[in-house]
Amino acid sequence: MAHKALKIGVVGGTGYAGVELLRLLAQHPHCELKVITSRQEAGTPVAVMFPNLRGRIDLAFSAPSDAALKQCEVVFFATPNGVAMQQAGMLVDAGVRVIDIAADFRIKDIATWEKWYGTKHACPELVAEAVYGLPEVNRESIRRARIVANPGCYPTAVQLGFLPLIKHAMVDLEHLIADAKSGVSGAGRKAEVHTLFCEASDNFKAYGVTGHRHHPEILQGLNLMAGRDVRLTFVPHLTPIIRGIHATLYARLQCNSRDSVDLQQLYERHYANEPFVDVLPAGSHPDTRSVRGSNLCRIAVHRPHGGDVAVVLSVIDNLTKGAAGQAVQNMNLMCGLPETSGLEQIALVP
Amino acid sequence: MAHKALKIGVVGGTGYAGVELLRLLAQHPHCELKVITSRQEAGTPVAVMFPNLRGRIDLAFSAPSDAALKQCEVVFFATPNGVAMQQAGMLVDAGVRVIDIAADFRIKDIATWEKWYGTKHACPELVAEAVYGLPEVNRESIRRARIVANPGCYPTAVQLGFLPLIKHAMVDLEHLIADAKSGVSGAGRKAEVHTLFCEASDNFKAYGVTGHRHHPEILQGLNLMAGRDVRLTFVPHLTPIIRGIHATLYARLQCNSRDSVDLQQLYERHYANEPFVDVLPAGSHPDTRSVRGSNLCRIAVHRPHGGDVAVVLSVIDNLTKGAAGQAVQNMNLMCGLPETSGLEQIALVP
Amino acid sequence: MAHKALKIGVVGGTGYAGVELLRLLAQHPHCELKVITSRQEAGTPVAVMFPNLRGRIDLAFSAPSDAALKQCEVVFFATPNGVAMQQAGMLVDAGVRVIDIAADFRIKDIATWEKWYGTKHACPELVAEAVYGLPEVNRESIRRARIVANPGCYPTAVQLGFLPLIKHAMVDLEHLIADAKSGVSGAGRKAEVHTLFCEASDNFKAYGVTGHRHHPEILQGLNLMAGRDVRLTFVPHLTPIIRGIHATLYARLQCNSRDSVDLQQLYERHYANEPFVDVLPAGSHPDTRSVRGSNLCRIAVHRPHGGDVAVVLSVIDNLTKGAAGQAVQNMNLMCGLPETSGLEQIALVP
Amino acid sequence: MAHKALKIGVVGGTGYAGVELLRLLAQHPHCELKVITSRQEAGTPVAVMFPNLRGRIDLAFSAPSDAALKQCEVVFFATPNGVAMQQAGMLVDAGVRVIDIAADFRIKDIATWEKWYGTKHACPELVAEAVYGLPEVNRESIRRARIVANPGCYPTAVQLGFLPLIKHAMVDLEHLIADAKSGVSGAGRKAEVHTLFCEASDNFKAYGVTGHRHHPEILQGLNLMAGRDVRLTFVPHLTPIIRGIHATLYARLQCNSRDSVDLQQLYERHYANEPFVDVLPAGSHPDTRSVRGSNLCRIAVHRPHGGDVAVVLSVIDNLTKGAAGQAVQNMNLMCGLPETSGLEQIALVP
Repeated sequence: MAHKALKIGVVGGTGYAGVELLRLLAQHPHCELKVITSRQEAGTPVAVMFPNLRGRIDLAFSAPSDAALKQCEVVFFATPNGVAMQQAGMLVDAGVRVIDIAADFRIKDIATWEKWYGTKHACPELVAEAVYGLPEVNRESIRRARIVANPGCYPTAVQLGFLPLIKHAMVDLEHLIADAKSGVSGAGRKAEVHTLFCEASDNFKAYGVTGHRHHPEILQGLNLMAGRDVRLTFVPHLTPIIRGIHATLYARLQCNSRDSVDLQQLYERHYANEPFVDVLPAGSHPDTRSVRGSNLCRIAVHRPHGGDVAVVLSVIDNLTKGAAGQAVQNMNLMCGLPETSGLEQIALVP
Repeated sequence: MAHKALKIGVVGGTGYAGVELLRLLAQHPHCELKVITSRQEAGTPVAVMFPNLRGRIDLAFSAPSDAALKQCEVVFFATPNGVAMQQAGMLVDAGVRVIDIAADFRIKDIATWEKWYGTKHACPELVAEAVYGLPEVNRESIRRARIVANPGCYPTAVQLGFLPLIKHAMVDLEHLIADAKSGVSGAGRKAEVHTLFCEASDNFKAYGVTGHRHHPEILQGLNLMAGRDVRLTFVPHLTPIIRGIHATLYARLQCNSRDSVDLQQLYERHYANEPFVDVLPAGSHPDTRSVRGSNLCRIAVHRPHGGDVAVVLSVIDNLTKGAAGQAVQNMNLMCGLPETSGLEQIALVP
Repeated sequence: MAHKALKIGVVGGTGYAGVELLRLLAQHPHCELKVITSRQEAGTPVAVMFPNLRGRIDLAFSAPSDAALKQCEVVFFATPNGVAMQQAGMLVDAGVRVIDIAADFRIKDIATWEKWYGTKHACPELVAEAVYGLPEVNRESIRRARIVANPGCYPTAVQLGFLPLIKHAMVDLEHLIADAKSGVSGAGRKAEVHTLFCEASDNFKAYGVTGHRHHPEILQGLNLMAGRDVRLTFVPHLTPIIRGIHATLYARLQCNSRDSVDLQQLYERHYANEPFVDVLPAGSHPDTRSVRGSNLCRIAVHRPHGGDVAVVLSVIDNLTKGAAGQAVQNMNLMCGLPETSGLEQIALVP
Repeated sequence: MAHKALKIGVVGGTGYAGVELLRLLAQHPHCELKVITSRQEAGTPVAVMFPNLRGRIDLAFSAPSDAALKQCEVVFFATPNGVAMQQAGMLVDAGVRVIDIAADFRIKDIATWEKWYGTKHACPELVAEAVYGLPEVNRESIRRARIVANPGCYPTAVQLGFLPLIKHAMVDLEHLIADAKSGVSGAGRKAEVHTLFCEASDNFKAYGVTGHRHHPEILQGLNLMAGRDVRLTFVPHLTPIIRGIHATLYARLQCNSRDSVDLQQLYERHYANEPFVDVLPAGSHPDTRSVRGSNLCRIAVHRPHGGDVAVVLSVIDNLTKGAAGQAVQNMNLMCGLPETSGLEQIALVP
């Protein structure tokens, strides 16, 4: 409680990850929001755009300003892909800690990034420096980082689900499957026909079976866990919920692990000390709503009919642990705050 | 921060108002949950029934026990109607402060109560003592109360919406209309066909046009405000949202108020010092989601085409300001805590 | 069954009223779709945009063409407001029957239309000729019409609800109230933020309290019924359902009607011969889903507590009876087909 | 049109498959509903329970009566599991064609059936005779059947999805995966907490990972296709839509098929003559809503990144092709009617 309030800047903040970040920061005991920039909404009070923040955030969006951001200790980018890479270097050089909630610094291989994001990268050298902000994998590096690439929503749910299996060399790495379902907020707050209420409600569909930007990001993470290249089939789906990702993961147990392994124990031990990963009792099926508005990842592991297939169920709130909450968790680590600071809200049920 | 933790008991707690109350109490800085009783679920850990509470509430439901409840300083009844009236007297006599979230103590006229709730009242004398827990009307009495009748959800939204108009004698009291819409959680967590997902989703309907239990409760409150009998047409509807009430209120302005009155100013002044009533700027339309999971009532007032009809839009979260949140607000008042203690969560949007 | 297939053209057809119209026409026993125009989508097969029509409509959208439309016997405009008025005259002159599902010909007073629709009207003389396509009011005129202005969705539900009360001079015409709730498809298939799934689902709100385009349209209709000017407060709301309107109507019974009138009988008799108005038994509450995908208006009438207020509940599917279905009903009348032809689908429940 | 109307009886009919069956039969050109039985609802007019059927079905539910059912030509059982096996024998003996929409006759191995359905089977000999009613596999046997076991919803979507791959020996039969998502109506119209609106909406979860009744039914079907035992991991999920199943199927291509096979062509050819299976163009992702209320199964087949995994997306309406619609299709076949008779409704979009 003796922490001095951190001076915080947010670039962007008009999207869903943005408003979630503002909700968390406004309630964070050690943060003071100094500036929220938006070229398009400059002058609009934040609480006019997001009435849930009335009485809690008095700032208006301001025009982007290097000077104002440089006076912050931490700057979050809650912007479309391709924005942070233009400004982050300047801020890092000025001693500001930077957390990019978008994808600019997630993929180390620049050619791969450029292929999937369709543009030339503006600062490959900063990509090399950036730490991938999945605390359950990179906690110590995050503590020392000047710039953190906050993971994508699918990659968070999928990597946390596979991590114990891969770390302990339990499964056939040639045939991993991630069948993932996302709430509609994952598509952002852009005016588009396919995410209209009348298109997305009372409807379920797969998309991007032929390719999705999160595939290379997940692969990079799984490869690092495995220490070799893995093969993954990744099929994302859109489900008519606002928040939430449910990843259903399939992996074939290695011959030598089949009889001896107790998957339940493996998962419980692996995550025993993690504040934001909750391994459910054997036989459970996590609801996405059990993490709605919370920073938790809830996981259950199954081995149906005692066979050779492990089925892992991993749920997160895509806007919290899958975006803004994880960003705050990274900020806490980078700034020496308690890791759970400002992240202890209980999921809203029902 | 110097407050000692209050010892809290909850009777019931397996319904939606119950889980909301537990969510709020688990995060309340000055409360310690000592006992949660449920005859039916005795022995079940609370977090098994409500996984969002895993790691936050370690208690199991216990069999009802007078002894355990008497050791609490505050006991909430989050039970079906007709339960609290059996036990409240004993607790009040033992010096425990009691808050009934159900309807047993809301209606002063026992015959009316018995007509609408279909059973004989077990302790009319306690009804006479109980304070109606709408802090915006009865704050000082609540501070001194031994037993509080927590208002219903519709009555909260409707009374707060009409209050300034009636208090200032602005409207024709013979022709008040409340067209109210409730989320489905208002019907509770009972297994019933009409609130199944496949019945209630993608559907909208009115119900109870011929009579609803909240009608006499609202009337009692409006009569007290007006100092005379008023006439109210009340039509509740079911809308496919989980949480939220939207009351659309219609009142005819008195001849002598039509020209001079500034309704916007009237509402802003009336509620200027209320921590949980937020009067929106002129021309606004409050979303129910802007109060989702928060204890706020957000209100907008209109006078369409400058005519003689005032239209008031009043929204609350039926489980928070309409039930558990208001109950905690009442507890704060009864126990000398800051009124907003534990009730400052920002609404979850989107 | 001896009817020759009518040659049909559709201008527009890429919105929700459009796809509903195509669904109905593709199943209509006496229609042959000849041309569907869309400037923007020219060349796209209709069934690529709307996969539910695969195998049922083989046409592609074509560029607007006067020649192709003139070869049709009936042309529907399922376009944004302001398009039909540019082309309808030419088609009417060529002997084509025209039905405008948009608003160009609904309001007789040109100044009022221009005020609400924000543009100069291109053919006031055709407005004078156009018949307002509410068959329950104007059936015989529709049979003889060359051009029909298909009513708006709110106006259909509200006018059918008030009609018997006003026709029989039962109510105070100075204080009519229509509290109406619409599904999100009423806002159309435009890419806009406020109708995104994450904005509109799990949320309820009023809008347009200060003014809505359907207000003058409803007033015009009620005035004609009453033979004098009436006063109406109209408050539309957005409810998270795809299809459906629920209008809750309030009217004060005239002193002299209070004792004698049997509202139930009044409604049943008034609508006894209407194929698409179904008066429910006394005490009923119609679900919007009970008319989902059907051309019916279902109505219940109440007099709460035997008082002086009549409450009418009126539901339609905004895309069917509130748009495309009523347009087909009008076509049937104009072309001498059985009025119910192609409109007998049973509502989809659940 | 020269067909004489078939006399139809329905046993049960108060659940969701029941009301869907009634909707289809009421619109079927060659059927006459003679009797609808329900012990519990005897005397209630069908249209009082299901107002969407007002004016279309005038029957009331009647008490079960062998005599009345024996006068029918076709009897559908839309009952809970375990009812049809008590009565079907008597009807078959009386020359009535029987279609069981429940599970009593689906599984040939009686011990397996008894294990999963938890009761002793009442007429194993009729199980042996019953034809599994998947027309795309058993069309000719269905034509000659006296009794048809209508397939489950998941089994329909999964079997139609895998059929071409297995029939043409394309895939590793040891590692089939079916990740299936169902709308909530699949759980039926029973009053249960877990399918309440407030439990199932804005939520997504897996269930039954450790075992589901449809697993042995699917296995039986796949084994017959393959001519040997296959191994299948089946994970069902609950998604907040009313109607619809989306099965995402994963299968490993055999080494020798990888280079040469054109999966798109394989599927298109296999289903070229099927009236109710629609293979979408390469690269497609079928929406569940594209089959809402229709009897179609829409399928897309993918081979992500040209690898060795085939991904099949298969959607049906669980109440139509997955229950009542397929039952009518079976009736059409059994009775010599056109297979598509009464089943040509276009899916309701939006």
